[in-house]
Amino acid sequence: MTVSERPIRVALVGCGYWGPNLARNLHQIPETELTACCDVNEQTLEKMGRLYPNTHLTTDFASICRDQAIDAVVIATPPRTHHALAKAALESGKHVLVEKPLTLNSRDAEDLIGLAEAQNRVLMVGHVFQYNPAVRYIKQIIEEGKLGELYYLYSTRVNLGRVQSDINALWSIAPHDISILLYLLETEPEWVSARGATYLTDGIEDVVFINLGFPGGILAHVHVSWLDPSKVRRMTIVGSKQMVVYDDVADEGKVKLYEKGVYRKEEPGFGEFQYRVHSGMITIPRLEMTEPLRAECQHFATCIREGQQPETDGLNGLQVVRILEAAQESLERGGAAITFSLP
Amino acid sequence: MTVSERPIRVALVGCGYWGPNLARNLHQIPETELTACCDVNEQTLEKMGRLYPNTHLTTDFASICRDQAIDAVVIATPPRTHHALAKAALESGKHVLVEKPLTLNSRDAEDLIGLAEAQNRVLMVGHVFQYNPAVRYIKQIIEEGKLGELYYLYSTRVNLGRVQSDINALWSIAPHDISILLYLLETEPEWVSARGATYLTDGIEDVVFINLGFPGGILAHVHVSWLDPSKVRRMTIVGSKQMVVYDDVADEGKVKLYEKGVYRKEEPGFGEFQYRVHSGMITIPRLEMTEPLRAECQHFATCIREGQQPETDGLNGLQVVRILEAAQESLERGGAAITFSLP
Amino acid sequence: MTVSERPIRVALVGCGYWGPNLARNLHQIPETELTACCDVNEQTLEKMGRLYPNTHLTTDFASICRDQAIDAVVIATPPRTHHALAKAALESGKHVLVEKPLTLNSRDAEDLIGLAEAQNRVLMVGHVFQYNPAVRYIKQIIEEGKLGELYYLYSTRVNLGRVQSDINALWSIAPHDISILLYLLETEPEWVSARGATYLTDGIEDVVFINLGFPGGILAHVHVSWLDPSKVRRMTIVGSKQMVVYDDVADEGKVKLYEKGVYRKEEPGFGEFQYRVHSGMITIPRLEMTEPLRAECQHFATCIREGQQPETDGLNGLQVVRILEAAQESLERGGAAITFSLP
Amino acid sequence: MTVSERPIRVALVGCGYWGPNLARNLHQIPETELTACCDVNEQTLEKMGRLYPNTHLTTDFASICRDQAIDAVVIATPPRTHHALAKAALESGKHVLVEKPLTLNSRDAEDLIGLAEAQNRVLMVGHVFQYNPAVRYIKQIIEEGKLGELYYLYSTRVNLGRVQSDINALWSIAPHDISILLYLLETEPEWVSARGATYLTDGIEDVVFINLGFPGGILAHVHVSWLDPSKVRRMTIVGSKQMVVYDDVADEGKVKLYEKGVYRKEEPGFGEFQYRVHSGMITIPRLEMTEPLRAECQHFATCIREGQQPETDGLNGLQVVRILEAAQESLERGGAAITFSLP
Repeated sequence: MTVSERPIRVALVGCGYWGPNLARNLHQIPETELTACCDVNEQTLEKMGRLYPNTHLTTDFASICRDQAIDAVVIATPPRTHHALAKAALESGKHVLVEKPLTLNSRDAEDLIGLAEAQNRVLMVGHVFQYNPAVRYIKQIIEEGKLGELYYLYSTRVNLGRVQSDINALWSIAPHDISILLYLLETEPEWVSARGATYLTDGIEDVVFINLGFPGGILAHVHVSWLDPSKVRRMTIVGSKQMVVYDDVADEGKVKLYEKGVYRKEEPGFGEFQYRVHSGMITIPRLEMTEPLRAECQHFATCIREGQQPETDGLNGLQVVRILEAAQESLERGGAAITFSLP
Repeated sequence: MTVSERPIRVALVGCGYWGPNLARNLHQIPETELTACCDVNEQTLEKMGRLYPNTHLTTDFASICRDQAIDAVVIATPPRTHHALAKAALESGKHVLVEKPLTLNSRDAEDLIGLAEAQNRVLMVGHVFQYNPAVRYIKQIIEEGKLGELYYLYSTRVNLGRVQSDINALWSIAPHDISILLYLLETEPEWVSARGATYLTDGIEDVVFINLGFPGGILAHVHVSWLDPSKVRRMTIVGSKQMVVYDDVADEGKVKLYEKGVYRKEEPGFGEFQYRVHSGMITIPRLEMTEPLRAECQHFATCIREGQQPETDGLNGLQVVRILEAAQESLERGGAAITFSLP
Repeated sequence: MTVSERPIRVALVGCGYWGPNLARNLHQIPETELTACCDVNEQTLEKMGRLYPNTHLTTDFASICRDQAIDAVVIATPPRTHHALAKAALESGKHVLVEKPLTLNSRDAEDLIGLAEAQNRVLMVGHVFQYNPAVRYIKQIIEEGKLGELYYLYSTRVNLGRVQSDINALWSIAPHDISILLYLLETEPEWVSARGATYLTDGIEDVVFINLGFPGGILAHVHVSWLDPSKVRRMTIVGSKQMVVYDDVADEGKVKLYEKGVYRKEEPGFGEFQYRVHSGMITIPRLEMTEPLRAECQHFATCIREGQQPETDGLNGLQVVRILEAAQESLERGGAAITFSLP
Repeated sequence: MTVSERPIRVALVGCGYWGPNLARNLHQIPETELTACCDVNEQTLEKMGRLYPNTHLTTDFASICRDQAIDAVVIATPPRTHHALAKAALESGKHVLVEKPLTLNSRDAEDLIGLAEAQNRVLMVGHVFQYNPAVRYIKQIIEEGKLGELYYLYSTRVNLGRVQSDINALWSIAPHDISILLYLLETEPEWVSARGATYLTDGIEDVVFINLGFPGGILAHVHVSWLDPSKVRRMTIVGSKQMVVYDDVADEGKVKLYEKGVYRKEEPGFGEFQYRVHSGMITIPRLEMTEPLRAECQHFATCIREGQQPETDGLNGLQVVRILEAAQESLERGGAAITFSLP
């Protein structure tokens, strides 16, 4: 049987924090089969075994790569291991889905992209919000021009917990916001700057504030932190005609569309301006309730089966890593703006 | 009769946006008498006349200064006029309360401070949040050490409306946040940086993001904008033991105290650290419901009567102006950090 | 000058709890002049005098009635005094606006209606929610058929405070809900029942739950209490096509319109039914921000000037009183349903 | 091996709406083993098979009863089948956990209680809220006297959806509220009355309002509906000293404790009363995050293993059914109060 006739056989590598969500979806959707689980921690594997008794368990990543019955590898390990694991999997001829961030530097990301091309395999990165119905809805109304001219966007993604000691809040949390911004704006920033502060572990920022300057004077701002009293996942998009608040933890309607804006109105004969604030209806659209991670896993399977390029492909992963690198450089240089050189 | 035996006779100059709130309080509290109202707009004066039929109305500021029956002048005019009006009032021997920002540059603020001293008159600035029971409560629990070590603070003060065309969102809105930060932290920042964007009027930022570095590694962040779908006035204060959210537009409890924090715990013998997230009760204290502006007006009267220095005196006004100046310089220099030289 | 050429001269009787709001509006709108204030409490009068120095103050109600310069009397005294005061005022030829409930029994209400007719004077009752833009909006979309078939309505109006010792929560609070129901449904109930409980004062219910059966099987339910931890003023209106939540204390949009409903769908050939739940967009309309009490005061002036019948006239007041009487009877008879006899 | 040495072997009967939640917990906790699943719908069984490949699947309930390897049966089928299925299972010597309501009349409930005693088997009913940390916390503070004298309680449990055509909203939804009330108050009501309305299916109330009179003048009110725009699961408990709001769908803190109350204060020498409203802090306690259904399943296993009576035993199930019966009678008699005869 070819992959077009049977479910894609997937091995999940890394079954800790986020892995179980991947496992659940890979198990439940008909497009894939959760063939194997791999983790360095035997207790973690045992838990997976209880939930998925027919799935092969191993602590030996190499055996996953060698296993000819496995089509694809999903990597949800700590980011510092992404490059090496993905590289080995691609070299063994597996299709690969890597959790975000793709790698910890752009050179490694470029390396994986090249390897995937050479091996003719799918390389995808888990920018899960790109598969989120709320984000897709916002993208659509931006494309339809409903917001008018886009002014600025800001995002707050904070919580208490998931304190990391090997990567900072920028690398751990901001990939979400940056991938959403790239998706919505369909362009890369011209510059980025970042300021952060370190309280718990030397050299690891717990909170980071990032500014991004996009073409056309669009400003974006991202606030990430794992030291916050409340779980906030909110993005605001301000346009000249309408404004959107996307609150991922809202009970009733994650997206609110505000008929609000300010128009500049030239006063005839005086060369002066007046501003008219208009404020109309608020609309909460009905969004389909599909789990974004499920859609992501299905898209991975589709790309493998049909030889498609994923929406969140290696290049998309690289773009996010480049911005994180620049933000990191800014953090280390006291918040200086880092300009991206034109290619 | 001396001022200790009768209400302070106050003239309000500028009866537009914020002026009516001052008028209402100056009229209602027994410590003051709203003797006169001055504005360039006759229609505005007419409205005041309807509400306060016994108050003298005038478009002539000079007549206010000349009027020996007037003890004090409250200035709520556009900021660009603050220095000249306050100067004239002080020179005429009036006590002066100026709305924030005190002036548009520190030289002018210093000038007013010197003049008030020379004239032996009260100079006060309307940093109204310093008279807010919620802010005073937070100050108190910080002083009591209840938050533990202070990590960082961030403030969002956004809304749709009050678009200005002569001063930007930094000068118009951020004085509130900066005065609260100075009050809570009892120290001035070491550096400030700011990034903004301009959509409506050339050269006037509609949205500004400000970072402030305070001694001891305390980071503060302020987001101000008049282009936002919702009215937000929220400050979060993160300490090692507890965290506070101060939401000035909350219905039920403007202050929430979270027993939440992350402790660093050294592992014996390994030189390694572990983090323990703890999360306990949330408390919403009962706060007295006094109107801050009323307390501010009463404090002004008390300072005049008893020859006291106001809590929000000229120096406090100057400190805020200095930070605004530095943030403005940063805005103009692409977000570069502006360091304050030691005195 | 006739009343068509100058503001209506109004005396406010009762300046305690709600009176100051009436005074403020009667003073501010151009259609009326707050000519006199009357209260049994001299301190209360003193406060009014400070706010409205040109208004005549008196503790002598009879002098108000005798004063030929006064066109109309607004009565905001305790409900047990409504009938006697309104009667005296009407007999003196004044137009009268009485706060809700119009009277404490229907006989007294009928008496006032007859008197007003005989004297050819305006008799209006302060059912203020009928002048509320949110309530008017809901009425309009019901009339347009947007909700489909009306199923049921329920209202919660609770708070901590305003504990009364002469009238119970039914008479004190429920007039609001009942007048809204009558306004929205444009019909009177067929029966009413009520259950309450008494904790603080013997014979005075602190909390009351009321059921009302309207023609066409429409059920309404009202919960009133002055013993509740939170201030709630919320009415839900459930129709077959859409549903409405009207939350009078909401920050962002008092009215929410839900495209939600359940359709009954006959299965062909089986005589069975299936239900389809549909759930679409939520819309928060933009409502004009006029103060309902202001509109009420203006309507009173208009009715006087133009000889119009008020929207909330004596008859409307009587309808509400009749329902309160029936609910009271039900309270006293253990919750028995009280049916209204057809006229 | 006896049941004290190995997991309890459980068959789940009814795998539709609520069944999957039971299956997940019975599978995951070490105290039980999900040995078999039984349902009339083969597609439903197939889904269960995919999730639990080692669980036996059958449409034949009798085979479950005959299977000696099965210790216990969990019944989550439509309520009209509860009695017959539970009876058969008990007669076969199985321990039985029945979803709420235990049966559709008290005679059937008494029958099951007698049978369980005769067979010496555990009979438990799934009043899951009794295993909810929030409800247990509220029970504890009531017992500690923190609320003072208990005045009244009211509960709203409404939603859009789960429209039923064989039982009405009273029998479908209110068992939750009634079991919570019995648990918190530790006493049975003296009377009950109910009013409902029928829109979708003849004879099946879609919305019901219930009043319950408990000893000591404590009034309880329950509002249930499956025709509502929003999901609400909120209970308010009003005491003389403190008040509690329990909101099961709240994000941040399901329980809020309000230091609020009204005291009656006798005025010396006048035989009159004054009321003092006091309003203090609001506290949101930290509650353990265990899933109530998990605790329920574990309690079932413990009772079987140790021969204990469940907290929510057959008698508790019977008490709830008796109240539902009385409320149903009241519904059918136009809301008349149904008094419980003393035993």
